[in-house]
Amino acid sequence: MLFKVGIPTAPSRLVLRHATRSITKESATQSNQVISNKQLLYTTDPLTPGSIFFLPHGTRIFNKLVQFMKNQQIKYGFQEVITPLIYKNKLWKQSGHWENYSEDMFKVMGNVSKEDHEVQDVSNEAHEHHHEHEHNAEDEEYGLKPMNCPGHCLIYAKFDRSYNELPIRYSDFSSLHRNEASGALSGLTRVRRFHQDDGHIFCQLEQIEQEISNTINLIKNTYGVFGIETKEIEFHLSTRPEKYIGDAKTWDNAEEQLTQVLNKTTGENSWKIREGDGAFYGPKIDVLLTDAFEKKHQVGTIQLDFQLPTRFNLKYVGEEGNRDHQPILVHRAVFGSLERFFAILLDHYQGKWPFWLNPRQAIIIPVNEKHVGNAEALQKELSGDILNHDEVISPMTGYNFYVDIDKRNETVGNRIKEAIQKGYSYILMLGDKDIELGTVAIRSRDNRKVSNLTSQEVYKMFIDLEKHYK
Amino acid sequence: MLFKVGIPTAPSRLVLRHATRSITKESATQSNQVISNKQLLYTTDPLTPGSIFFLPHGTRIFNKLVQFMKNQQIKYGFQEVITPLIYKNKLWKQSGHWENYSEDMFKVMGNVSKEDHEVQDVSNEAHEHHHEHEHNAEDEEYGLKPMNCPGHCLIYAKFDRSYNELPIRYSDFSSLHRNEASGALSGLTRVRRFHQDDGHIFCQLEQIEQEISNTINLIKNTYGVFGIETKEIEFHLSTRPEKYIGDAKTWDNAEEQLTQVLNKTTGENSWKIREGDGAFYGPKIDVLLTDAFEKKHQVGTIQLDFQLPTRFNLKYVGEEGNRDHQPILVHRAVFGSLERFFAILLDHYQGKWPFWLNPRQAIIIPVNEKHVGNAEALQKELSGDILNHDEVISPMTGYNFYVDIDKRNETVGNRIKEAIQKGYSYILMLGDKDIELGTVAIRSRDNRKVSNLTSQEVYKMFIDLEKHYK
Repeated sequence: MLFKVGIPTAPSRLVLRHATRSITKESATQSNQVISNKQLLYTTDPLTPGSIFFLPHGTRIFNKLVQFMKNQQIKYGFQEVITPLIYKNKLWKQSGHWENYSEDMFKVMGNVSKEDHEVQDVSNEAHEHHHEHEHNAEDEEYGLKPMNCPGHCLIYAKFDRSYNELPIRYSDFSSLHRNEASGALSGLTRVRRFHQDDGHIFCQLEQIEQEISNTINLIKNTYGVFGIETKEIEFHLSTRPEKYIGDAKTWDNAEEQLTQVLNKTTGENSWKIREGDGAFYGPKIDVLLTDAFEKKHQVGTIQLDFQLPTRFNLKYVGEEGNRDHQPILVHRAVFGSLERFFAILLDHYQGKWPFWLNPRQAIIIPVNEKHVGNAEALQKELSGDILNHDEVISPMTGYNFYVDIDKRNETVGNRIKEAIQKGYSYILMLGDKDIELGTVAIRSRDNRKVSNLTSQEVYKMFIDLEKHYK
Repeated sequence: MLFKVGIPTAPSRLVLRHATRSITKESATQSNQVISNKQLLYTTDPLTPGSIFFLPHGTRIFNKLVQFMKNQQIKYGFQEVITPLIYKNKLWKQSGHWENYSEDMFKVMGNVSKEDHEVQDVSNEAHEHHHEHEHNAEDEEYGLKPMNCPGHCLIYAKFDRSYNELPIRYSDFSSLHRNEASGALSGLTRVRRFHQDDGHIFCQLEQIEQEISNTINLIKNTYGVFGIETKEIEFHLSTRPEKYIGDAKTWDNAEEQLTQVLNKTTGENSWKIREGDGAFYGPKIDVLLTDAFEKKHQVGTIQLDFQLPTRFNLKYVGEEGNRDHQPILVHRAVFGSLERFFAILLDHYQGKWPFWLNPRQAIIIPVNEKHVGNAEALQKELSGDILNHDEVISPMTGYNFYVDIDKRNETVGNRIKEAIQKGYSYILMLGDKDIELGTVAIRSRDNRKVSNLTSQEVYKMFIDLEKHYK
């Protein structure tokens, strides 16, 4: 359903099926919290229930996920936009949210008396037309956006559009707010403020197949980066319900294209149909993952929409010159809610982040005080171009690895143990012999085996790990 | 003043002094709008007055500015956090915004009746203590944040802090909302929703000098990237007013440090003092640029704050074990409002963006249809690693240049003319001879001289231009 795009409706315990640990629901929830507390990833506060504070290390992961998706979407022709968070109620009436969704939205009020004052200052008409003035004040009620689609429709409608511009694909990583009941709030999976890797595609009917095919490929490839195999992803196609808008022929055509795409991208018997389960405004594909308790969770989504283009009177001029063509709108998200996907990854990796995503990629342990200087030089070198640059201004493009030093007066053994607990991917030890040899003793989080590598070898390894999403 | 950190109070026409064009106030405002319309950078809508829609090309510039600052701040020890946008009124009472700033804030309401229902569902106490229940419902009023500081204080207060962790430096690029009067709204400079390159430093009194010194250096170096010389930047130190909080000795110490820093970083006679003009909670340094009309505009800001740490009861344990030390809070921004800085840059460059910042870095013009295939191959090659990667998944780190093709059936001359109007930094022409020679004919926006370069030479030039912020 349009009004459910990426809503964090999944329950609070998410463990991917192939995480075969036997784990109770309680311990899975606690587990997320325990890992977050240990790794200082996020926190919450009763002053803003359901809104996550991402701490510095959680922010690193969050930003990596966003940057990952931005880099992928370039190839798929998406153009990022930055759109407002509050819109007057008039917009929500036009979009249909007022009617169908207002209970789940936060209302926003300007200071109306202040507004009045200003209006009187600048406009004589305000004195003359008191009723209109009152109407203005009433208009200063806004809704805090729960979705990006109306904002993207406004942008589409700002310009004359032509068939040869389509598909137009907007992406947006805005904050979204949905007033979930406070009793239902839980961790990262049921929140009031969240972000989506949101995208809206405005296209012609005959372009749907290609767009959906691209989206499914992006979904499969993206999940693959996190070790989730295609056979673990479920695709559900929901078709025309009894009550629907638009003409049956458009529906048939769209459903036929979706069927073709699913057959081609996932194989003929590897997706499910839910007859008559589509939204009244269009068919959709839900993308689900199954957790350790055999519970399914919606992650990605692809929804065709024949309604919003009508409500916003969106048009394009066809090749034959007719200005009255209406585009199809496709809502789609790959991660879905970034907060929820973050929770899935927390459970999935149990805090053992792969190097590329790890907010603690490496730690250097100088054996004793006299090695600290060398350790600091090594830290700078391994941190990458952004920090290692000689100019006062850092460059725009370059590597940026998270390398810490533990120079506390603790035994090397204790410091290694703590580094493993904190989840560092690599631990680098630096003592007299290492400095003499011009190498560093490096071990991974999971393997005690120590190798002696030069700093250049370590740096090259970091680059390779990131490049291959290891 | 605390409550003025980066408020877009600057008037709507901003032209840097060294832009010596003679230009009226009216034409400067119009000029911004004309450039934006031509280059499709941003737009607005009456459904959300004062909130900017950044169109795809404007978003490219906006994101570059943000990424630029993130890259710089790594070196200065800032840790990015992502913090909520809405907080219950209780927070704003604690921070002092309720008393001093509530008229300029947007109020946010959850659906209280829904809340009530949920609370009754999950809590028997709600039935027993009706008054408390009512109190809960009232608590569901929020303020949409106008500043990030209270959120950062909450994070600071979540953990026991020690002297050896300080300074703690949080950066945040959140959306901020301030309910500016509608009559005052104008373009990008007076808005209701904006973003800051915001930072808060929690430090010890004796660390102020180093932190302020770093901040001033970052400001000077950053503005320098945009061709703004240090002599064009004004620094104003505002000192202790008659009414103040904290003890006079702390003030004296802080002001002495600020004086030392300004002398060292800008020279003894190159900053101004405003005696008694500080906020009641601390001294501050305002950073100003002057426009073509000799009007000054605040951009960066550095504000010491002895008050918020008290209001939020922020503490750290000192080296001697005393747990009752109070950190100093420094509010600081380099760009200030990103929207306003964007406006300044629009005026400054008049749409002639330097290559690194240009949302239209290059355009390829195939002489005729048969050269389109080569043009597309060249486009892919010059677009950089992110797009040019052979794997299905694009890498995290790499170059990403904005290279378009104009394959319309227009004369080469017309297409060049239009490309210049649109502001492309480089125009690349590809015809029979170029393909035969394995080169491309390239000219810049500003110079008719055509060079014949290989694609590798062009790509290397792009990298150099970005690296040197040209």
